[in-house]
Amino acid sequence: MRMAQLSERSGTPVPTIKYYLREGLLPRGERTGRTQARYGEHHLRRLRLVRALTDVGGLSIAAVREVLDKVDSPEPTTHQLLGRTLRDLTPTASGDVDVQAEEVDTERVRALVERRNWRVPAEARPFADLAEVIAAFRRAGHPVDDTALDDYAAAVESVARVDLDSLEEITETDEILESAVVRTVLGDTLLAVMRRLAQFDESARRSPATDDDC
Amino acid sequence: MRMAQLSERSGTPVPTIKYYLREGLLPRGERTGRTQARYGEHHLRRLRLVRALTDVGGLSIAAVREVLDKVDSPEPTTHQLLGRTLRDLTPTASGDVDVQAEEVDTERVRALVERRNWRVPAEARPFADLAEVIAAFRRAGHPVDDTALDDYAAAVESVARVDLDSLEEITETDEILESAVVRTVLGDTLLAVMRRLAQFDESARRSPATDDDC
Repeated sequence: MRMAQLSERSGTPVPTIKYYLREGLLPRGERTGRTQARYGEHHLRRLRLVRALTDVGGLSIAAVREVLDKVDSPEPTTHQLLGRTLRDLTPTASGDVDVQAEEVDTERVRALVERRNWRVPAEARPFADLAEVIAAFRRAGHPVDDTALDDYAAAVESVARVDLDSLEEITETDEILESAVVRTVLGDTLLAVMRRLAQFDESARRSPATDDDC
Repeated sequence: MRMAQLSERSGTPVPTIKYYLREGLLPRGERTGRTQARYGEHHLRRLRLVRALTDVGGLSIAAVREVLDKVDSPEPTTHQLLGRTLRDLTPTASGDVDVQAEEVDTERVRALVERRNWRVPAEARPFADLAEVIAAFRRAGHPVDDTALDDYAAAVESVARVDLDSLEEITETDEILESAVVRTVLGDTLLAVMRRLAQFDESARRSPATDDDC
């Protein structure tokens, strides 16, 4: 297809596509004339992945290039690619956590990972992120106890199974990663919003009066 | 206690306390001299609630005042207060959702709420928020199906039970609300970060090769 079509099918303006080409985020098309080139389905898939990483994931161009370098390196497993792509999508819910974790917090993550039998190395980024969140609860004067951690853990385990299931039907690497980025980032918001609804319902159930004030 | 003690026990600088007093977010203390006043435990609780709403919840001073007006209005139920306080804590995970929901999205929320038997009125703010998130998935080309919605819903139901349990032990209204704000906002991040860990684990389990790349 021509660049105009690539633009239309991907919903990406032509100047943006040219920028990605210059930055090397999108491979050049097949030259068909002095000023013309032809693009294929793999260009479309790559373009969608780049858009998902920048627009939905909020990654910088440099971070996108790093992800793509890994995607294009020889024969990584899907698991490696997912780990490398998703680790940069740090969740930043409202009230950004800006608290240094201490050994006591890290130890609690270590114990949780062991209790849940999670196959996550201590060097993984979300491992450190979780210690920071636990530290934030503690500093705010509302420490989260192990029972709550375990209950939250059980909940996200079932969510993660749904997440991975949704990727199993896809075969193209670029599409798997694009879908993983979109579903992971939007999924955070989905979970948070649904949690508000479920809290509202749970609160109503426990309320003696039958009011449905909102 | 004197203002200096109130500052120390709440971890709030004196100028900030004076600002809250001027803005009417904190009731005046009992006058004990021309320039001195005495503060009690209810001042401390109120101060902690204001800090939680502004610092953790990210609410504006005007929004805080609105919440407090409701807290101080005669005899609202805890359920009403929780609903009114939490509804302003809109989750803003990374990749802010800025998508108008259409009737098709709202209808899916309506059906979900019915399937789950959630006691949430259609006017509740998270109801509309959820329709927007569902619209965002659709627009991004990765629609979320009902099975996924139901699985996510089951997960947040158990989370909401834990959330409400943690409030049951508290009796003072200001403390209940402060705890609810901190636990709701930080809990969003906790869920998101834990989901990354669980995704990593789930991906490792499904991976044929035994690698633990992060």
